[in-house]
Amino acid sequence: MATNSADLSSKKWEQSLGTISRPSFETETLFANPNAFRDNKRYLDCDLNRQFVPADLANPALANYEQSRAKAINLQLGPKGDARTDLVIDLHNTTSNMGPTLILLKNDAFNTQLAAYVAERMDNAVILFEDHCSMEEHYFLCSIAEQGIIIEVGPQSQSVVRQDVLEWMETMTLHILDFVELYNNGDVPPLPDTVSAYRYVETLKLPEDENGERIGMVHKNVQDADFKPLIKGDPIYTLFDGTEILWQGDYEAYPHFINEAAYYDNNLAMSLGKKVDIQVIK
Amino acid sequence: MATNSADLSSKKWEQSLGTISRPSFETETLFANPNAFRDNKRYLDCDLNRQFVPADLANPALANYEQSRAKAINLQLGPKGDARTDLVIDLHNTTSNMGPTLILLKNDAFNTQLAAYVAERMDNAVILFEDHCSMEEHYFLCSIAEQGIIIEVGPQSQSVVRQDVLEWMETMTLHILDFVELYNNGDVPPLPDTVSAYRYVETLKLPEDENGERIGMVHKNVQDADFKPLIKGDPIYTLFDGTEILWQGDYEAYPHFINEAAYYDNNLAMSLGKKVDIQVIK
Repeated sequence: MATNSADLSSKKWEQSLGTISRPSFETETLFANPNAFRDNKRYLDCDLNRQFVPADLANPALANYEQSRAKAINLQLGPKGDARTDLVIDLHNTTSNMGPTLILLKNDAFNTQLAAYVAERMDNAVILFEDHCSMEEHYFLCSIAEQGIIIEVGPQSQSVVRQDVLEWMETMTLHILDFVELYNNGDVPPLPDTVSAYRYVETLKLPEDENGERIGMVHKNVQDADFKPLIKGDPIYTLFDGTEILWQGDYEAYPHFINEAAYYDNNLAMSLGKKVDIQVIK
Repeated sequence: MATNSADLSSKKWEQSLGTISRPSFETETLFANPNAFRDNKRYLDCDLNRQFVPADLANPALANYEQSRAKAINLQLGPKGDARTDLVIDLHNTTSNMGPTLILLKNDAFNTQLAAYVAERMDNAVILFEDHCSMEEHYFLCSIAEQGIIIEVGPQSQSVVRQDVLEWMETMTLHILDFVELYNNGDVPPLPDTVSAYRYVETLKLPEDENGERIGMVHKNVQDADFKPLIKGDPIYTLFDGTEILWQGDYEAYPHFINEAAYYDNNLAMSLGKKVDIQVIK
């Protein structure tokens, strides 16, 4: 999840706040990790978007660059649990082939209606629920606010700006802002009863030896196949010695964040989700 | 041109030199930029593969990490102009959609026969001649030796290993080693009279303002369209304000290295080549 398009959109919108303002609310922009951007990296010391658990925010011993940025951002937008900000939209890129994905952390009226609204207006939008824990327990930046969502667009190599990916990010952001305006005014148009989505289940690691050294890679059949079904017996990894490893799970899985560059530090291979029909709560 | 697949192949082959040895010659592996690999970057201070002009190699004031590595590698494989190594095969990755590309620096019997041999055995191989200057004038690492070639495979994000890209690199390398063995023994099989290839013409910069700040990006029609023809009037850039910039060149151009991550430091957008039929010199 590099931040090139996110930074570019953020900087552009800083200079034209009219584009992202709506009558019923105020919009601010925040450039989350300027030093990583300066150094053309995902982060300097650790993943900023994993630092927002309350205990970590309150722990003064966590003092590296991103841990310090998390505290500063929490002060600016939060504090988490009693935030002055009602909604955080966090803009991210990924090297994975996820298209424009809307990640939602709560299964409530606001989020399910938002999912249905965006899905109807953006053909290639993917809806992904990561509602397996409470906002308090989430470690994401956007969990500071009562409502927090992530826009995740890819594939885009770190350090590169792709026009298609940038446009998806901007289009999805503007649909979300339009929806919030309608929602605030009680003007949300008729929506379907359900919306097709994915729900996060688990994260898989790359094959490792007993010393934690990587000994394999994502299988070429799975590469770029984000949100394509994976069933028991499908090849999922190839070891460097050529051996194919088959997936042994007992459900139809939908991989995403496949072979994401930023996850190599932890030898993560991909996330798996299930396909679900989400009830739109009205 | 990140070095992930290159590093992986190099390390694998270090441990099984039999795969890359042939009766008529000895093969050594060299891991060119270990500190960039350690830091998960293309380079620390400057592009290693631009440091091999004789005057720079002889200039003790050029002392940063890559400039020092260049001198050390020249000592190990060279010296350039009188090298103990006959052939350098330099393995590279790119974030551009170049497939497996064989870059050749000389238009002679060895290189043209090699091009024809590889093209016949690898359907998706692309042959690219960068023979616009002498080996002495080239700044590439592989110009140390009398014969130097580059294998360039992509698209692959920096920090990521893709199985397809890794396999293309290994397949192309083994074809080249097979060819060298046949060539040394006078056993090269019958080859066609010509081989379809591209020849480097020029490098284009991203749109900049008067202060050298980037004000635009590669047009989405051109993104991923490496080695697809570009003709006068085709859109080539989109400015951040939405304006489309059209290409005004007077020849049918074949872009490559489109939107390569490592070239952003110099605001380079892409290289352009012409399509050519190269005479196979027998």
